[in-house]
Amino acid sequence: MKLREKELLKRIGFRVSVEAICIPQAGLQNTEQNKQKEALFLNKKIVHKECLIALDESGKEMNSRDFSHFLKQCLVERGTVNFVIGGAYGLDSSILNRANLCLSFGRMTWTRELARLMTLEQIYRALEIDGGGNFHK
Amino acid sequence: MKLREKELLKRIGFRVSVEAICIPQAGLQNTEQNKQKEALFLNKKIVHKECLIALDESGKEMNSRDFSHFLKQCLVERGTVNFVIGGAYGLDSSILNRANLCLSFGRMTWTRELARLMTLEQIYRALEIDGGGNFHK
Repeated sequence: MKLREKELLKRIGFRVSVEAICIPQAGLQNTEQNKQKEALFLNKKIVHKECLIALDESGKEMNSRDFSHFLKQCLVERGTVNFVIGGAYGLDSSILNRANLCLSFGRMTWTRELARLMTLEQIYRALEIDGGGNFHK
Repeated sequence: MKLREKELLKRIGFRVSVEAICIPQAGLQNTEQNKQKEALFLNKKIVHKECLIALDESGKEMNSRDFSHFLKQCLVERGTVNFVIGGAYGLDSSILNRANLCLSFGRMTWTRELARLMTLEQIYRALEIDGGGNFHK
């Protein structure tokens, strides 16, 4: 894990309990089977009552303040919020359909490494906005 | 500069000549004067015939393929393409008005450090798309 990721996880950890889990890519030739195999793991891992936010190019765009309000509400109502970033071929429809929010970081395509960093920065920013910190001007 | 930035600059450098310049923040109390002072430097630095792409939250969103086509066209027609990322208070209107493209990475707010990394990844992706590489699936 990169330094900046560790730093952001540490900072997020001052406000909420946080954990980053990298799952191995299924590595199958068939991309649909690949996504299904990854989804099987995720669907077992994520408890029904928890909030699921799927990062998806065709998802909803939000500004950082609106995202902050949404995240706060999820934390209060659901306790745990899971962010899921897909592999090279995106996420299985079972994950996208189950998600409480499909979130898009614009129309560009990002590597999952950068998407992870972007997600962590937005989570940190969201908590800072909620906490009244001066990170978000 | 972070490792990933160096890596991306190196990879971009295999296809086109590239240089990253960090300008010091003007550091004035008045945010408008701050932006104007930064703009003075930029307007001197960027030659009139060159292409200027300003990163701006309220700019145009493009997908990576469309951006690749746009960048290629700029490189062919203008030779040099400048990407400008603003400081904490954004960019001066003289830069935004002069820009050939105001480009937005979605509605979220990003730190300039991450915006720089995102820009480099999109430039690399754009060149890979144009060059027929398999980075962009």
